[in-house]
Amino acid sequence: MKLYDSRRAPNPRRVRWFMAEKGISDIEIVEVNIFAGEHRTPDYLAKAGLPNVPALELDDGSAITESLAICRYLEALYPEPNLFGRDPKETAVIEMWTRRAEMLLATPLMMTVRHGHPALAALEQQVPEIAEANRAQAERAIKVFDRRLAESPFIAADRLTIADIVAFTGLDFARMVKFQPPESAEHVRRWADGMRQREAASAGV
Amino acid sequence: MKLYDSRRAPNPRRVRWFMAEKGISDIEIVEVNIFAGEHRTPDYLAKAGLPNVPALELDDGSAITESLAICRYLEALYPEPNLFGRDPKETAVIEMWTRRAEMLLATPLMMTVRHGHPALAALEQQVPEIAEANRAQAERAIKVFDRRLAESPFIAADRLTIADIVAFTGLDFARMVKFQPPESAEHVRRWADGMRQREAASAGV
Repeated sequence: MKLYDSRRAPNPRRVRWFMAEKGISDIEIVEVNIFAGEHRTPDYLAKAGLPNVPALELDDGSAITESLAICRYLEALYPEPNLFGRDPKETAVIEMWTRRAEMLLATPLMMTVRHGHPALAALEQQVPEIAEANRAQAERAIKVFDRRLAESPFIAADRLTIADIVAFTGLDFARMVKFQPPESAEHVRRWADGMRQREAASAGV
Repeated sequence: MKLYDSRRAPNPRRVRWFMAEKGISDIEIVEVNIFAGEHRTPDYLAKAGLPNVPALELDDGSAITESLAICRYLEALYPEPNLFGRDPKETAVIEMWTRRAEMLLATPLMMTVRHGHPALAALEQQVPEIAEANRAQAERAIKVFDRRLAESPFIAADRLTIADIVAFTGLDFARMVKFQPPESAEHVRRWADGMRQREAASAGV
């Protein structure tokens, strides 16, 4: 298998972090330079179907895009440590929190960067109103996660799961627009410190 | 189990459609009136955690929100017909297409309605630029799905899956803002006609 990766983008980092937590080291990493348009070449599009990174090319030549679809596939092949849940109920709770992490926090932060950071003006027709609405959404989300992390060491369970990876990589990417949890979000800050200290935090950064 | 449902919102319809495809009829349905603010009462928030509908209350009193987490949970309890995939690779392909359906089409269309339809002004601080950018995104997505449906009877597989439910309920909701696939998107139109004729299309509509 080959993972088509892009160092600077936030979604590929989810997969690198996930692989590092599992100790997966037998998948070849191929760097795709988004700023050079390598994700839009006919070769890449024929493989991945859409100009999206990451993409996982399987041994049969087909490819899977979407970071979470890739991670769930890798979970089936490399089941330990478990990051998606061990039974239907735990899996549902982890998926619920992963989606909240993505939709309330990580995607709004990514949109804040895409529509608000000068370096991304080349990739996106920037709309300041979109950056602003998304930053406000992420600020509300920090409160939701702070309440959750007041009662739980990690976002979805008493151990690290895919929900933490999605939330933290989203938050860390938003340093580009100087977004950070306020002092008052003490539980988010404690959790973020813990995430930053994990070995996987430096996977391909 | 009880499903907290809201007839007019798009995400609960995914779950009703999913249950109808599986013939699930032993889950009590409780209507939550969003326009009357019933999703923001202390009772509802204590149960669901966030002011989100749908929510599935389990027999142990806990609740799962997020339509796709609920559907995947129900898939484990009611495995046939299979709508999420039978092996890791098929599951990954279905999740990839489900996420594309959601992020490229259904969510942009929902945002177009939320930021563009007068009836939703009470629930949302509407930003016309957001409605416009999302409508343009959905128009691009129709081309992606038209190419896909030129080569496949359904979005993710040769049978109906959760990806079709997410895409079609999103598209159908957008009739509120008079969005529909253009004549040129003949494969999307053929597929949408087929979806509209399924028995599940009328589940709770």
